[in-house]
Amino acid sequence: MVTAPNSEVETLKESQVWLQPKETLSAPAAIELGQLLDCLVPRLLSYVDATASSKLPVAADTSPSELTKLLDLEFEDVGLSQEGLVELLAPIVMKSVRSWDPRFCDKLYASTNAIGVVAELVLAVLNANSHVYHVSPSLTLAETATAHSLAKMFGMGINSGGITLPGGSASNTTAMTTARNLLFPHIKESGYGADDRLSVFTSTHSHYSIEKAAIVLGIGSSRVYKVPCSLDGRMLPAALKAAIETSISKSEKPFFVNCTAGTTVLGSFDDIEAVAAITRPLGLWLHVDGSWGGPVVFSSMYRHLVFSSSLADSLTINPHKLLGVPVQCSFLLLQDKRLLFKANSLQADYLFHDQADQFRDLGNATMGCGRRPDAFKMYLAWKYYGTAHFSQRVTAACDNALYLAERIAQSPYLQLAFPVHSVNVCFWFRSQDSIAFSSIADSHLWTQDFAISPSWGRLTQAIQKKLSSKGEFMIDFAPATIHVPSPNGQLKEVVLPPFFRMVMNSPNLTTSHLDALVNSIESIGKELSVADV
Amino acid sequence: MVTAPNSEVETLKESQVWLQPKETLSAPAAIELGQLLDCLVPRLLSYVDATASSKLPVAADTSPSELTKLLDLEFEDVGLSQEGLVELLAPIVMKSVRSWDPRFCDKLYASTNAIGVVAELVLAVLNANSHVYHVSPSLTLAETATAHSLAKMFGMGINSGGITLPGGSASNTTAMTTARNLLFPHIKESGYGADDRLSVFTSTHSHYSIEKAAIVLGIGSSRVYKVPCSLDGRMLPAALKAAIETSISKSEKPFFVNCTAGTTVLGSFDDIEAVAAITRPLGLWLHVDGSWGGPVVFSSMYRHLVFSSSLADSLTINPHKLLGVPVQCSFLLLQDKRLLFKANSLQADYLFHDQADQFRDLGNATMGCGRRPDAFKMYLAWKYYGTAHFSQRVTAACDNALYLAERIAQSPYLQLAFPVHSVNVCFWFRSQDSIAFSSIADSHLWTQDFAISPSWGRLTQAIQKKLSSKGEFMIDFAPATIHVPSPNGQLKEVVLPPFFRMVMNSPNLTTSHLDALVNSIESIGKELSVADV
Repeated sequence: MVTAPNSEVETLKESQVWLQPKETLSAPAAIELGQLLDCLVPRLLSYVDATASSKLPVAADTSPSELTKLLDLEFEDVGLSQEGLVELLAPIVMKSVRSWDPRFCDKLYASTNAIGVVAELVLAVLNANSHVYHVSPSLTLAETATAHSLAKMFGMGINSGGITLPGGSASNTTAMTTARNLLFPHIKESGYGADDRLSVFTSTHSHYSIEKAAIVLGIGSSRVYKVPCSLDGRMLPAALKAAIETSISKSEKPFFVNCTAGTTVLGSFDDIEAVAAITRPLGLWLHVDGSWGGPVVFSSMYRHLVFSSSLADSLTINPHKLLGVPVQCSFLLLQDKRLLFKANSLQADYLFHDQADQFRDLGNATMGCGRRPDAFKMYLAWKYYGTAHFSQRVTAACDNALYLAERIAQSPYLQLAFPVHSVNVCFWFRSQDSIAFSSIADSHLWTQDFAISPSWGRLTQAIQKKLSSKGEFMIDFAPATIHVPSPNGQLKEVVLPPFFRMVMNSPNLTTSHLDALVNSIESIGKELSVADV
Repeated sequence: MVTAPNSEVETLKESQVWLQPKETLSAPAAIELGQLLDCLVPRLLSYVDATASSKLPVAADTSPSELTKLLDLEFEDVGLSQEGLVELLAPIVMKSVRSWDPRFCDKLYASTNAIGVVAELVLAVLNANSHVYHVSPSLTLAETATAHSLAKMFGMGINSGGITLPGGSASNTTAMTTARNLLFPHIKESGYGADDRLSVFTSTHSHYSIEKAAIVLGIGSSRVYKVPCSLDGRMLPAALKAAIETSISKSEKPFFVNCTAGTTVLGSFDDIEAVAAITRPLGLWLHVDGSWGGPVVFSSMYRHLVFSSSLADSLTINPHKLLGVPVQCSFLLLQDKRLLFKANSLQADYLFHDQADQFRDLGNATMGCGRRPDAFKMYLAWKYYGTAHFSQRVTAACDNALYLAERIAQSPYLQLAFPVHSVNVCFWFRSQDSIAFSSIADSHLWTQDFAISPSWGRLTQAIQKKLSSKGEFMIDFAPATIHVPSPNGQLKEVVLPPFFRMVMNSPNLTTSHLDALVNSIESIGKELSVADV
């Protein structure tokens, strides 16, 4: 009935378009895109080639004021030519941090990989929005299948599944919102009543997004109980129990307990089974924040760290971290995915028309509207590399961490801070007048009047800065608050000076890199005296 | 000091890498990426070419069960070959909705364009995370500059600026959280006290994300006052004033008023100046949700629609809608961007080390952690196409809407529902025994006992379904609740049957397409009788 304005329209078969692509393009948008890609793809490949093989420093040492001068940050009426675009992008790309370089170990993500780039390219071309099935049919099915397959790996059942959300914080916040909306449905309509003083429980080492979620939700940071951890970084079940009892004694309503699977700084894993034994009888929602450590589920060697994750009501996992999927890709998985819809759906009849399958329009499961189909990136990586690839990648990363811990133990200059659980290794450069110990979890350590010199923190930060400005390694540092047993049986809070937090994220990080890192830190440290820092 | 494990390392100059890219790659990751792009780019270009020139139906007519059979949704240990990848992607790409086709007018986004695809490709290669300046220096500067430039267009001052967030809902929710945290700082720590019965005001035609935000924040949907609109879809200032007074009389605390610039269904614009005259003396936070209509600021012809946006405390604009930037790209702009940091920052000393410039780490301005650098996509589009391109694009879209409204007025079969403000055109196919009117805003209409036949809604939906299944046009439908003056001076709520909501989003939509749409709807509608639906 309608014909497109172009009268020479021929009807193409779908398969021809994809399987026998034409050499000659005719649509102006396709021609323009082809020209830009011809010009830019070789440069981007050159960038990947140079950085992945460490032919440049891992970071450009450019100050913010220098960088501001290099960039073109003014907008004009007339756009750029293709040559102008190449020039514009030069400092943007070349002064960015080089995450393809295996020496980028600064954050809990590194570069993506070939299939990650391809997945982003496909998403850009489709420009799909996965809020409604009707406009993202294949991507909705891929998301649903990927979430269910992931949930099954964590031992979740037949109704399990979930959705992607824009990052671990968003997933954790949505988990808390979902729990609150289900356990206290009247709050959805009426807000908190005078009796609705809800409370939340999470360990001192957990990610700040749990506290931020409680702030957003209007629960308030003071009703987030930060439960002390053992000296190897795991939430103390007895302390959790005591905190819940304290909260109840104040007429609060405990409802949400977060277990961390892979803490941000230490990489430690809470004991989900022990926590579930406390939360289950009380009917509390048990969430596992596996943003960082969740991927150990792929490794037969390290899967035990998330043993009992099937006891959780919800679980966050970020494939954009340890699995190399492009930033951002975070899944919120539920034992019963239908609860996401029940808790978060509002009738928006201008948008959600499908009565036939109420779980088909994934936007209905969120507190948002439009959604980037991030799940597709995990789907494609999983299909292309296979499960065994993820398994090897995670196992190798954990093995690397053990190797580095061993090197640190052998070094007269370095001191391991915490026992190594998975892929984080925390350590100091220590001053030479101190006595070595195995880690702060050494039971004998805290029976003495032990203190770690603040100078270790200053040395560590000075070395980190030098490593980074030389472009040799990007690794981060962090302080930590721990709880040590004191003679009266109480726990005493101790703030540890900043230590190196090395993470084994890049799949191309080898033991040679780790040797080089140890050597480099030792060399820089030996040249610095405590008086210098 | 450290040398990379590869001993044949040569030191490259940054400029060589980008400006004189090597033909031969050596890093395995670069080689793999090059091979995948060689194989897939021609296919993706072929897809863009075919769909942008309407050589395929605008949507594949495949049922969910058929599509499930076509897709490979199981994961195996071993990954796919390159050929396997091409096959895997075939149904995913080819059964997706074809948003490059100008006849895709179903949602408030369409395809992106050449520079949009390039921007996503650059982001994928950099895989940057813009939470901390240290790991995303150039992208942080680009985001800061772009947000400030956008804010200036809305008349905001020297301290204005903002950040990108994952979608308009996230921006609106962050605006509400920011307002609450600033106006009632004790809630951040202690949660809502018995006196903290906050209330929110927004029009009946506003987006549901305002209500969802109030639910997330624990305010509750019942304290979201949905203010009636005039018959052309604009929030009634007198009704807003009355609603605020009602709320105060119930001992609630009004704090947040949302004006919509471009409502989802009608495309109408609230009168910001009139609303500000009410909110200012009371010290309420004034937010403008310009997710959809904000881009009219680029058009000298239609900029008047956001006149007085400089009176807003915060404003949302989604370049991923009307400006063709890839999904997702949403800015939250503030008169004083420093307030975003003040309201939302938590001390996370493992991450935010920079004391020198507290506004440099953009993650600190959000309730999240890791962030996709979406702002870069707007930056690059603006630089490459120039301001004039956006101006022309927006003006042409608004002009198209007026053209279609004129065509509808001339048609004996179609009935315009609402006056056209910007780029939304709402209309019915009407039954032939009815009397035409100019729009439901006709003042004489509601003085009579007027009713719009429910059959119009059924006809409209039946035609929409046929148009879509034939792949001729994808346009959406929506119902609406309006308020009409009744003889006693009160407003009476009337639910209008579903009408077509046509949006002028695609830059390649021409008046020929609109003629074809009118002809097609008329033809299908004439074949259907009221009894059929």
